[in-house]
Amino acid sequence: MPVVHPVCVRFHRAVELIGARWSGAILRALFTGQHRFAGIKAAIPGISDTMLAQRLRELEAASVVDRQVVSTSPLVVEYRLTERGLELAPVMDALTTWAHRWIEPSGAEPTTAVT
Amino acid sequence: MPVVHPVCVRFHRAVELIGARWSGAILRALFTGQHRFAGIKAAIPGISDTMLAQRLRELEAASVVDRQVVSTSPLVVEYRLTERGLELAPVMDALTTWAHRWIEPSGAEPTTAVT
Repeated sequence: MPVVHPVCVRFHRAVELIGARWSGAILRALFTGQHRFAGIKAAIPGISDTMLAQRLRELEAASVVDRQVVSTSPLVVEYRLTERGLELAPVMDALTTWAHRWIEPSGAEPTTAVT
Repeated sequence: MPVVHPVCVRFHRAVELIGARWSGAILRALFTGQHRFAGIKAAIPGISDTMLAQRLRELEAASVVDRQVVSTSPLVVEYRLTERGLELAPVMDALTTWAHRWIEPSGAEPTTAVT
């Protein structure tokens, strides 16, 4: 068995969490003030209902996002960043800064669905 | 067609680049001083030669990593972060800080191969 450095395990999990397809975009939508399913979806052109629901469940399971029933009749659900999620702000900021400096807005797209 | 905000396209590409499976771990290995294929591989238990080679090619294509032939006989190749790659340091630092605070080192693993 290889020697495993705990920090490396943690880092790997963190990068896989925010790096999962669409997860970064969903977090970005939440950070920019979208809290309802429709609003988050509208902020991410190309994402399907199924994929958005799945990723929100994963982020909720990771305690990064909290799902709150705001009203039961009619049913209104909001998704909010937890303390754990909010503390990703420096990561989001650093990545945004880097992307703005180094990634061209034009050219070949990373996916067929542009967000 | 939806209105696409350029910064969002850039952010999406950046998060997909470092979030691709193993890419974060490879960048971490490069940042911590590993520059040869065998050294990078040893720093990431569980990664296959094929996957490491593929990810290094992708990072090279994204101009984040530079492949340098240090010696031709015997063939010695080194992988170095470019300026673009080195400027990911704040992202790596922020993610490491967050992971250290919020991700448990024990418990269920994100993958069967622990790094």
